[in-house]
Amino acid sequence: MNMYEILLKKRNGKELDQQELSYFVRGCVDGSIPDYQISAMLMAIYFQGMTPKETAVFTQEMACSGDMLDWKALHQRTVDKHSTGGVGDKTTLIVVPIVASLGVVVPKMSGRGLGHTGGTIDKLSAIPGFQTQISQEHLWRLLEKNHAAIIAQSGNLAPADKILYALRDVTATVDSLPLIASSIMSKKLALGANAILLDVKTGSGALMRDLDGSIRLARTMVEIGKAAGRNTAALITDMDTPLGYAIGNALEVMEAVQTLHGTGPEDLTQVSLSLAAGMLSLAGKGSFEHCFELAKEKLYDGSAFEKLKEITLGQGGDISYLECPKKFSLSPFQMEILSPSEGYLAHIDTLSCGLASMLLGAGRQKKEDKIDAGAGILLLKTVGDFVHKGDPIARFYCQSQSQAFAAREEFQFTISSEKPKGRTLILQKIGF
Amino acid sequence: MNMYEILLKKRNGKELDQQELSYFVRGCVDGSIPDYQISAMLMAIYFQGMTPKETAVFTQEMACSGDMLDWKALHQRTVDKHSTGGVGDKTTLIVVPIVASLGVVVPKMSGRGLGHTGGTIDKLSAIPGFQTQISQEHLWRLLEKNHAAIIAQSGNLAPADKILYALRDVTATVDSLPLIASSIMSKKLALGANAILLDVKTGSGALMRDLDGSIRLARTMVEIGKAAGRNTAALITDMDTPLGYAIGNALEVMEAVQTLHGTGPEDLTQVSLSLAAGMLSLAGKGSFEHCFELAKEKLYDGSAFEKLKEITLGQGGDISYLECPKKFSLSPFQMEILSPSEGYLAHIDTLSCGLASMLLGAGRQKKEDKIDAGAGILLLKTVGDFVHKGDPIARFYCQSQSQAFAAREEFQFTISSEKPKGRTLILQKIGF
Repeated sequence: MNMYEILLKKRNGKELDQQELSYFVRGCVDGSIPDYQISAMLMAIYFQGMTPKETAVFTQEMACSGDMLDWKALHQRTVDKHSTGGVGDKTTLIVVPIVASLGVVVPKMSGRGLGHTGGTIDKLSAIPGFQTQISQEHLWRLLEKNHAAIIAQSGNLAPADKILYALRDVTATVDSLPLIASSIMSKKLALGANAILLDVKTGSGALMRDLDGSIRLARTMVEIGKAAGRNTAALITDMDTPLGYAIGNALEVMEAVQTLHGTGPEDLTQVSLSLAAGMLSLAGKGSFEHCFELAKEKLYDGSAFEKLKEITLGQGGDISYLECPKKFSLSPFQMEILSPSEGYLAHIDTLSCGLASMLLGAGRQKKEDKIDAGAGILLLKTVGDFVHKGDPIARFYCQSQSQAFAAREEFQFTISSEKPKGRTLILQKIGF
Repeated sequence: MNMYEILLKKRNGKELDQQELSYFVRGCVDGSIPDYQISAMLMAIYFQGMTPKETAVFTQEMACSGDMLDWKALHQRTVDKHSTGGVGDKTTLIVVPIVASLGVVVPKMSGRGLGHTGGTIDKLSAIPGFQTQISQEHLWRLLEKNHAAIIAQSGNLAPADKILYALRDVTATVDSLPLIASSIMSKKLALGANAILLDVKTGSGALMRDLDGSIRLARTMVEIGKAAGRNTAALITDMDTPLGYAIGNALEVMEAVQTLHGTGPEDLTQVSLSLAAGMLSLAGKGSFEHCFELAKEKLYDGSAFEKLKEITLGQGGDISYLECPKKFSLSPFQMEILSPSEGYLAHIDTLSCGLASMLLGAGRQKKEDKIDAGAGILLLKTVGDFVHKGDPIARFYCQSQSQAFAAREEFQFTISSEKPKGRTLILQKIGF
């Protein structure tokens, strides 16, 4: 077996077997396959695709290219959640406490934000003292005690994916369905939970902008998870409009707390309850509908909010900020965006909204950029609202006028004389 | 402009413009584009192809990536020939003297053989003293005096092609029509002749085994040549059977001499006269048919043989070998291959014949392999001959029994009770 033959086989559209995929993945990690053959292979995969079997095997090979975490010693059901990334998506802060409050263990490892999407780790970092870099021993103690912890992804997880992603990024091979699906799922498999719920976003602020593409991605990932023996399912959720009103780190924590008090935005509450229901159902707590009711109960009776405080306390965070969210200091320069005309707020371009938030300091253009925890956008109106000329649509928070001006250039919304159609939050359930 | 955008554009099937192709080719040569982006680009070209315009521009950019030879100062028409490679193809040794004997200048630069195909330089090296490494000054003097020289390709010709070919070879992107055509033509354009005749072989011993592929390759190359202002045409010639009876370096020189005496094999004589006619016609000597008659005259009146002696003398070769070909010493170990049954010799697998000849020592498996000038195969029968069981079909020449046994394993032919159909030597003329 050699890389040339594997490359030729894939180029000619034949299905690679386990040995060939393993040879390729191992060769990427140990450096025995040169970059130019890896990138030719990625382009061949871009054009020829991968069968479901190939994708599943390839993902498992990537997953076991580094550390494989294992929670068996906890003797409890474990469930993980992954979002393909959105704007204003603070659901993890709501969903993890709900699920953990029902006794299901959530060893949640999250990422930092890049580009127009935020990251859960950045959001939690807005809470003074909250530690996301935590040792394995400490993590085990937290999971035993609180059933949940939310920490930064660390260690040697799926190193093959890191190598492949770096090459995809510079060879125009990022937007390939099997490569996207295997990249996401290799890390999820390495993280070791028994069950995995995928939140596949669709719409103007999502990785997959069209519903068909989102469904195909979700199905592929669910197949990968099931083939690896994990109880996996997906929800396709709307990301054509930002989720909730808050975009930015402290702003989003404040909105998550409000939601855990039962008074959050309707869309955020519904999506969070659905995700929690999906996770609980995958963890064996009954049907999706039954789990939705369980989740609702824990949200409205305050248990979930108590659980967020426990998680925060366990990770060194100052819970007085959760008890009194007014303590969060928002960025000093504020500017309101006014409606240029009268009519219905018909659409908010969610990608532009994420990019504007990044320009305000709430996100990163490059990995090394610093985050301003108090920066971001608070939407004052949402899609479907009627506005008069001059009504404020959104408030920007940042450090300087120049940031606000740059963000205003980016931020796009549409005012129309026609009331927009109602929004479907959960577009499809896959794998339940 | 950056390589990522160019790569993305090609991947998406858009036509690259002159600036983009130039940026790519220059970046390959100056090292500013990394190998992994070049190989991803080659794979994208493999799948998306190139338009005729793109192929023409790409080839011209490759041609001018290094030295561009120029024969204008000779004040004569110059014509070049290129064969896509075959088995037993010694036509250059016959065609160059014919054309030069009619006053058309042929500055012929040839290659060495690799794999199953022989190279003209190796054949000439079988003549003691024949120098193929010649200085530019010496070459000019020879062209002025003899109208022809056959020398080894040297200098910094189309360095972009060298870089791209090395990567194609290891990334399964060799067999792409625009990449094959641009690779061949970039070198031909750099060699500077006014007119270029392409001998595109088709059949079991050729680069392109099917006629359709051969025609497409020929058309693409003719378009490239014409777009670059060169008078270019192609003949599609048969390579389903070895050309002539001799395969191997000294053996082929002997057969070329025999052909220049007018007593060579019919197929070799006809193909050589057609190629000479094509070259003469492209150089302005009249119609193809008229030039065919001119070539025939020079072959049968001995002028072409005299010209080969002049060329040989000019390059330091011992012409007594041409005058008395029995002086060539053939390899000492000889073995005859006998027919296993009675019937017609229906087919000789030409690729297997070339590989067998290589195993006997007449060719190279790797670039650094040494050639045995006296080794090779002399066919004793040709396709269509009736043979009895035990009749010798071919004689192998080599240094050892083990070489002969290895070659016998490779060598394949078919005996059939049905007489095979007659062979068409010139399957198509393109661009005249």
